[in-house]
Amino acid sequence: MDALHDLKLRLREFAAERDWDQFHSPKNLSMALIAEAAELIEHFQWLTEAQSTQLPPDKLDEVKHELADILLYLIRVADKLDIDLIQAAHNKIKLNEQKYPAKRVKGSAKKYTEY
Amino acid sequence: MDALHDLKLRLREFAAERDWDQFHSPKNLSMALIAEAAELIEHFQWLTEAQSTQLPPDKLDEVKHELADILLYLIRVADKLDIDLIQAAHNKIKLNEQKYPAKRVKGSAKKYTEY
Amino acid sequence: MDALHDLKLRLREFAAERDWDQFHSPKNLSMALIAEAAELIEHFQWLTEAQSTQLPPDKLDEVKHELADILLYLIRVADKLDIDLIQAAHNKIKLNEQKYPAKRVKGSAKKYTEY
Amino acid sequence: MDALHDLKLRLREFAAERDWDQFHSPKNLSMALIAEAAELIEHFQWLTEAQSTQLPPDKLDEVKHELADILLYLIRVADKLDIDLIQAAHNKIKLNEQKYPAKRVKGSAKKYTEY
Repeated sequence: MDALHDLKLRLREFAAERDWDQFHSPKNLSMALIAEAAELIEHFQWLTEAQSTQLPPDKLDEVKHELADILLYLIRVADKLDIDLIQAAHNKIKLNEQKYPAKRVKGSAKKYTEY
Repeated sequence: MDALHDLKLRLREFAAERDWDQFHSPKNLSMALIAEAAELIEHFQWLTEAQSTQLPPDKLDEVKHELADILLYLIRVADKLDIDLIQAAHNKIKLNEQKYPAKRVKGSAKKYTEY
Repeated sequence: MDALHDLKLRLREFAAERDWDQFHSPKNLSMALIAEAAELIEHFQWLTEAQSTQLPPDKLDEVKHELADILLYLIRVADKLDIDLIQAAHNKIKLNEQKYPAKRVKGSAKKYTEY
Repeated sequence: MDALHDLKLRLREFAAERDWDQFHSPKNLSMALIAEAAELIEHFQWLTEAQSTQLPPDKLDEVKHELADILLYLIRVADKLDIDLIQAAHNKIKLNEQKYPAKRVKGSAKKYTEY
């Protein structure tokens, strides 16, 4: 029913079967997460922005795996800290709407980076 | 219905209202994502693993915001590259199950890090 | 005499005076280092490549601080693991020269990213 | 004479011979740098803090390479932005001395993380 909930349960089982919960402290999981985020970075670091929007199929497949890995560790950290990711995301968007009112920040990169 | 789909649409609107799509190349979004992952790291870098499992309420709230930010940028990158995050995650778990058979890797950190 | 050696000694003293060595495991220092690398990323994430080469003075000053922070943590990790950074760097360049022979990789981004 | 200056010149030559300056914008180099910092993280993510201080020889060699890579990209970014790393590092230590007076922050992790 809830897609993230399904993944959470599947990852719990995955860790339990391997006896890996002992390594899955939030501290360690945050390290694994950023290491996956860096593998995403590696795909883009020598590409132009335009090239990054038009990936060849084999590279796109690799990027899919990196995005998946980031999501999996994100779900694991959230699970370990008993955080509801979807609710947290909606709350954060609300905060961002107040922090960056459309009227004030619309348009220029300058405004974007300064807010 | 689909929680990630809802967030995707809300983020599209958020960017459109601010005319920020011009900045949201996959390359740039991958940078923003790792910057958020690093804010998560900062919360844990001087804590022990045990401390990282028992965050005080105010710190837990901040961590919620970081996890939310990571998820939001993850959804944005996936949207820009037309990737289905949930499907990608299930595919990746399947690959991991083959890569790390429970019988072979069960238990020790040594095995864990070497596979 | 040796600029990095001076910094190493100064940082040892800095940590000792604050009784911070207890937090400076290589694991923790690697987290602090990547958090500083992410602050560098944040300065560049919404800029074009061309803009990133022409920073206004105030932004350049901030970037100086981020580069300094990265160097300081790099020196600390190396110190804790008794690694000679300069020697390691020269060895790595030698390896890179073998890995990426100028004749073979010269020029295109394609070659660059595939090697 | 100056070890970092020597490395800077050697890296300039390395890039020129491969015609890679076209890829070495500060934006791109900051991405390459954080990707190397993440490879360092990967060595430590499933280790305890204590284990991270006692690396077996083969792992220590790999860590040497990661530290070297970080230093090399750090030197390249600084070169492209005409920043003197050593001077920037000394300035930053001075700032940190003011920000974290030894008397005030000495000792506890709590103080350490809150300043």
